[in-house]
Amino acid sequence: MTAYFDNAATTAMCNDARSAFEKAFEIYANPSSVHSAGIEAEKLLSASRKKMLSVIGGGGKGTVVFTGCGTESNALALFGTSYAKKANEKKNIIISDSEHPSVYRASEELKTRGFEIREVKTRGGAVNAEELYALVDDNTFLISVMTVNNETGALYDIKELCRVSKEKNPRVIFHTDATQAFMKTDTNAAASGVDMMTLSAHKIGGPKGVGALYISNRLLTSRSVVPVLYGGGQEEGLRSGTENTAGISAFAAAAEYGKAYFDTDTAKINELSSYIRSELEAAGVKINRPVRAVPHIISASLPGIKSEVMLRYLSAEGIYVSSGSACSSHHPGISRSLQAFGLSAKDADCTVRISLWRTNTADEAELLVKNIKKGLDSLIKIRK
Amino acid sequence: MTAYFDNAATTAMCNDARSAFEKAFEIYANPSSVHSAGIEAEKLLSASRKKMLSVIGGGGKGTVVFTGCGTESNALALFGTSYAKKANEKKNIIISDSEHPSVYRASEELKTRGFEIREVKTRGGAVNAEELYALVDDNTFLISVMTVNNETGALYDIKELCRVSKEKNPRVIFHTDATQAFMKTDTNAAASGVDMMTLSAHKIGGPKGVGALYISNRLLTSRSVVPVLYGGGQEEGLRSGTENTAGISAFAAAAEYGKAYFDTDTAKINELSSYIRSELEAAGVKINRPVRAVPHIISASLPGIKSEVMLRYLSAEGIYVSSGSACSSHHPGISRSLQAFGLSAKDADCTVRISLWRTNTADEAELLVKNIKKGLDSLIKIRK
Repeated sequence: MTAYFDNAATTAMCNDARSAFEKAFEIYANPSSVHSAGIEAEKLLSASRKKMLSVIGGGGKGTVVFTGCGTESNALALFGTSYAKKANEKKNIIISDSEHPSVYRASEELKTRGFEIREVKTRGGAVNAEELYALVDDNTFLISVMTVNNETGALYDIKELCRVSKEKNPRVIFHTDATQAFMKTDTNAAASGVDMMTLSAHKIGGPKGVGALYISNRLLTSRSVVPVLYGGGQEEGLRSGTENTAGISAFAAAAEYGKAYFDTDTAKINELSSYIRSELEAAGVKINRPVRAVPHIISASLPGIKSEVMLRYLSAEGIYVSSGSACSSHHPGISRSLQAFGLSAKDADCTVRISLWRTNTADEAELLVKNIKKGLDSLIKIRK
Repeated sequence: MTAYFDNAATTAMCNDARSAFEKAFEIYANPSSVHSAGIEAEKLLSASRKKMLSVIGGGGKGTVVFTGCGTESNALALFGTSYAKKANEKKNIIISDSEHPSVYRASEELKTRGFEIREVKTRGGAVNAEELYALVDDNTFLISVMTVNNETGALYDIKELCRVSKEKNPRVIFHTDATQAFMKTDTNAAASGVDMMTLSAHKIGGPKGVGALYISNRLLTSRSVVPVLYGGGQEEGLRSGTENTAGISAFAAAAEYGKAYFDTDTAKINELSSYIRSELEAAGVKINRPVRAVPHIISASLPGIKSEVMLRYLSAEGIYVSSGSACSSHHPGISRSLQAFGLSAKDADCTVRISLWRTNTADEAELLVKNIKKGLDSLIKIRK
């Protein structure tokens, strides 16, 4: 028996997505082709877009542009809006201090291109609305704050943050990276008031290689976004490249399935998550609990055991967790998010991420807890 | 019976690619995860990269960076090398006058960002090496000339063009968009001397949503390319975003299959192509024959019949051809490539593209020819 608790890194494809994928393989023409085979592919694409808009509550208020991944969606959100600005204007961008690398590294790059970057704190897993309000000024044109943190599960109050930002500067563009929030909490684009929202398929039981960016009509009509990928003019001219119709239709299928079973699945995950947290706490593990959080992500600081050591120990037993986000493996070092949350470098280095999905079972949770406890007893501790 | 002759727009997935795809669905962990499930995914990714490098003859001379599509590969080639340059340098980029929109629209964008763009002609389907030599100077840092034109099938002598360019300026970076050349002609990256080569999966029986950019070691070690997508640092830091392991492994499988049957398939396509061209010429259709060409793409100017009209007529019979490239459907207007080739606007407007693949049969070719002839007799002609 194996137990996969690295679902925030990626999920297995659900049956609905696989069926959609395989069905779409037959509708293989290019949706840009004007013959009837192309039109059939275009219909599949349109239907998928409609489904996605319905799931995220964006119909009538905006559209979704399909991309190659969440990272590309974030690039389109950040670079696309920045490049739409005249280069010589003195503009600033606000991000949180625990954004995913695809946001903060993009912001670092924009800094080298003349934009000022401001950071709002996420200590304890919350963004203070007043602090954000104070940071916004007339030159703030873009704010990017994730909905759910990928390492702590912290759930930020995007609706409120969006509201106060626009109260201070109504022209501000508000983007949220909802990659880790989608299908884990309510992500109603229109209701939250955001202008852009990043989504990724492979985090919700869809395929890898497909992302989406919700863009509000306000941004579309004011031409506030320019492409990152230029070419054939697909996706309203905002993302060129032959559309991955099969992957997109599988993404839409995964989203529809996820929405239909959202309440049941969330209740189940909540129960498993509570069980794991209380068992681990009883065993001396410190659970890093954000002010508000989704139950899908558990950040657990081990007493004196390096996360890498525990991770490999569990891996040998067929149990998969992570140390920080999977994306960090290319950038070794102490997690930026965990330190922003308030952990010391030493505690951050001893922190594992357990990320759940509806596919996890009570047996798997028991196996996980049992083996972490065994590890706590047997693994070599670092000096305090 | 239907007959799909729009293979330059996209191909159906071959069985090897589908099998690889479905097999890879089981290896679903994130290749950046360091547990054993992640390592298994990373192995699949490495094996796919090795296969691709072997197929394109790039092993030891460079690497392939996997992307979300050919358009993204072209963006990485053009923007990635341009942004690596200091913005205040007076640099020029040379492209051909019949590049795919993903190259020429990227170059237009770079023009607005201070780069000078020079164009080399492709009249008659050839690039004159002396003309290119004359255009290159000390400030030329990038040349991008496609290997095979997507509308005429013209095969440009990239090896020679690369040689003369570097003779004039050894520091020049030579990029070729080989999207339409891959599996249609020899595309040995190292032997051709290019520094970067764009490849796309869905044009060779692989999945949509996967591309690659070959990058030479010279460019990698001199840090001459910066990313377009920033983030987790995947793909040697040059293309962040969770790798589409299933799609990538399907791409590699399609490439391996294509290479194994290249000679047989090309011979078959050559035969079908000759048959179609001679039958159409006999019926009064003008075949636009480039100096050198791949047999896979036939550009046929109809006597006084608009391509759109013929396309729809054939489509109703289940026969699929295109008018220009599929990517052009979002940018209506007279084909840039066909005019660069030397066609008048009127002739370009009456030109259909018939694009073949190994999946086409002699029966399909007969059906195509029969119906085009019927169309020539029955469709309303425009005034000369």
